[in-house]
Amino acid sequence: MAQGSARTYSPGILPIKIEDGRILLVDQRKLPYEFVYFDATSHEDMCFSIKDMVVRGAPSIGVAAAYGLAFEMKRLAASCQAADVQQMLVRFRQAKNELNETRPTAVNLRWALEIIDDTVTAAVSDGINLGEIANLAQARADEIHDQHLAANFAISEYGAALVPHDSRIVTHCNAGSLATCGFGTALGVIRSAYFSGKNVAVFVDETRPRNQGAKLTMWELAQDGVPSTLICDSMSGSLMAHGKIDMVVTGADRIARNGDSANKIGTYNLAVLAHYHKIPFYIAAPLSTFDAELSDGRDIPIEERCHSEITCFEGRSATIDNANAYNPAFDVTPAELIAGIITEQGVLRPDYRTSIARALDLELLAT
Amino acid sequence: MAQGSARTYSPGILPIKIEDGRILLVDQRKLPYEFVYFDATSHEDMCFSIKDMVVRGAPSIGVAAAYGLAFEMKRLAASCQAADVQQMLVRFRQAKNELNETRPTAVNLRWALEIIDDTVTAAVSDGINLGEIANLAQARADEIHDQHLAANFAISEYGAALVPHDSRIVTHCNAGSLATCGFGTALGVIRSAYFSGKNVAVFVDETRPRNQGAKLTMWELAQDGVPSTLICDSMSGSLMAHGKIDMVVTGADRIARNGDSANKIGTYNLAVLAHYHKIPFYIAAPLSTFDAELSDGRDIPIEERCHSEITCFEGRSATIDNANAYNPAFDVTPAELIAGIITEQGVLRPDYRTSIARALDLELLAT
Repeated sequence: MAQGSARTYSPGILPIKIEDGRILLVDQRKLPYEFVYFDATSHEDMCFSIKDMVVRGAPSIGVAAAYGLAFEMKRLAASCQAADVQQMLVRFRQAKNELNETRPTAVNLRWALEIIDDTVTAAVSDGINLGEIANLAQARADEIHDQHLAANFAISEYGAALVPHDSRIVTHCNAGSLATCGFGTALGVIRSAYFSGKNVAVFVDETRPRNQGAKLTMWELAQDGVPSTLICDSMSGSLMAHGKIDMVVTGADRIARNGDSANKIGTYNLAVLAHYHKIPFYIAAPLSTFDAELSDGRDIPIEERCHSEITCFEGRSATIDNANAYNPAFDVTPAELIAGIITEQGVLRPDYRTSIARALDLELLAT
Repeated sequence: MAQGSARTYSPGILPIKIEDGRILLVDQRKLPYEFVYFDATSHEDMCFSIKDMVVRGAPSIGVAAAYGLAFEMKRLAASCQAADVQQMLVRFRQAKNELNETRPTAVNLRWALEIIDDTVTAAVSDGINLGEIANLAQARADEIHDQHLAANFAISEYGAALVPHDSRIVTHCNAGSLATCGFGTALGVIRSAYFSGKNVAVFVDETRPRNQGAKLTMWELAQDGVPSTLICDSMSGSLMAHGKIDMVVTGADRIARNGDSANKIGTYNLAVLAHYHKIPFYIAAPLSTFDAELSDGRDIPIEERCHSEITCFEGRSATIDNANAYNPAFDVTPAELIAGIITEQGVLRPDYRTSIARALDLELLAT
């Protein structure tokens, strides 16, 4: 097995590429059956792609939206007369709002859109010409992409140090390259530990109802040859009770100032089970996932998705006709169940109010 | 809504019927899409039916096996010369062993087979003729069936008294008529509470990987009009954290003398979550589910089923090719997480060693 630091390795299959002036997204709805790109260059196609989960994972959604808004800026610039700048800005903000409303829970979406907006707003008030503003916006999206790559490597190295030499790890959903535009957050930690020579075995929650664990995480781990075992979301307790799990690590979609963390539905179940069995439960996420405006997790908006995600499977009914269902896409794990939050500024520990504030301050100083 | 005692109502759709000398099983693999019977009259077809889950649910497996063994006795009797009785007994025991080995976890299977064996053995030693022995065996299987009907009604009434007037209840897998050859155990409790006029809403775990919740429990609850909502197994924690669950009730496949209870994989997760949220977690099961030979749950054999139950869905791959998977069909919930075990002898409470011993003694006296 190769050994070295995470930075030595390829970041994995990146979900977003810019090629010949197009935004191409790996169509994550089709993996692992087909590896195809979806052209999300138009504003409408980008909104659809985020809503329908062509691209998913909080960090990847942020990067995709940044490119989407930058490309919309380019289109507006191309059709705008110099006198119409204020009108252009109105349409730009409308596009930004439409992107922001595609999915409510991941804060990275809002974070990335604000960065592009700030760039454009500042450039407009500096009187820079529109073509140049569009270039600046796209350059800023590129920077956000690069920033994720770097943050992922740092998270992976900080996290790998927490992984015991012989480790059986549960992860939930997909927090790998596809989700993060980089080496991965939760999966980055696992890959980095594995590449450093640790004896790692991963139990992968299938992650109902969208099965991102079965479809995406199993696929990503197989690319690197990391030993993986697919389980149903209901099996982790039994494994823990039999002493077969050493740690749990997942990503996050939004983290409040006190450490409460929203992530894929089922993460909270895992965290309670880990707590009951005295197994450390970690979150791995870049600082762009933190929402400094939220004091705690109670106000994190939880997206409810279409019932058919539960009542159907691959187009076939999975239950009675007209079944009632409930489909929250996320849950919130309270800070007290989290052993540490692995970020690019290091592993944050309780008291999270203090450690998170310090990490966000450091990040501000660094940028 | 109609009101009255559970006994007032139809026991529901019974999974086993004896008609024109055939054993007909509701093919539970095909619900809710099709309601068809599977002819399990031959010994081979009965073994297949239990293994492949044409019939499932610990009590129903017991009843089916009792009929299967009685019908095998009838075939052996028809082909046996008077002098060959010992030879016949050897073949009878072989058939019993084959039935016993179809599934390892539900103790009701062994319990029912022992009853038929005892009946046959006693009749043989009394010198009763083989045709008459076969009739006795089938009559004993009928009695077992009737006993389940009666036990289910009693369980349902004892359990309904535990259900608060306005209740949001989580259940897992299927412990209704299909599983129990009667009014149901966990679903019997819910149906009885509902029919008694209580305001009951049921959250139904889809119950991966075989989806008995989505396919069977949703179907059974719809027959009676009980309000039901399908959820993924990973959503119960979030519901509990939001104060939306008042109690949890499931069936069981084997209960040790100390109250440790094996049930469908995922039951343990639910029990830990209920414990963490201080929500009562109940098991509902007939006394035939208790294993007096087991001191605690550690020695309950846990069946591991085919990986394809997880790696495929309705014949289509659900993950990468050659995925490794782990598929325990059951887990064990330790007694300390169980608020009460609802039986036909009443609701057993801790200390379970004492209350279970007393209930089993009462049952012995009653039979």
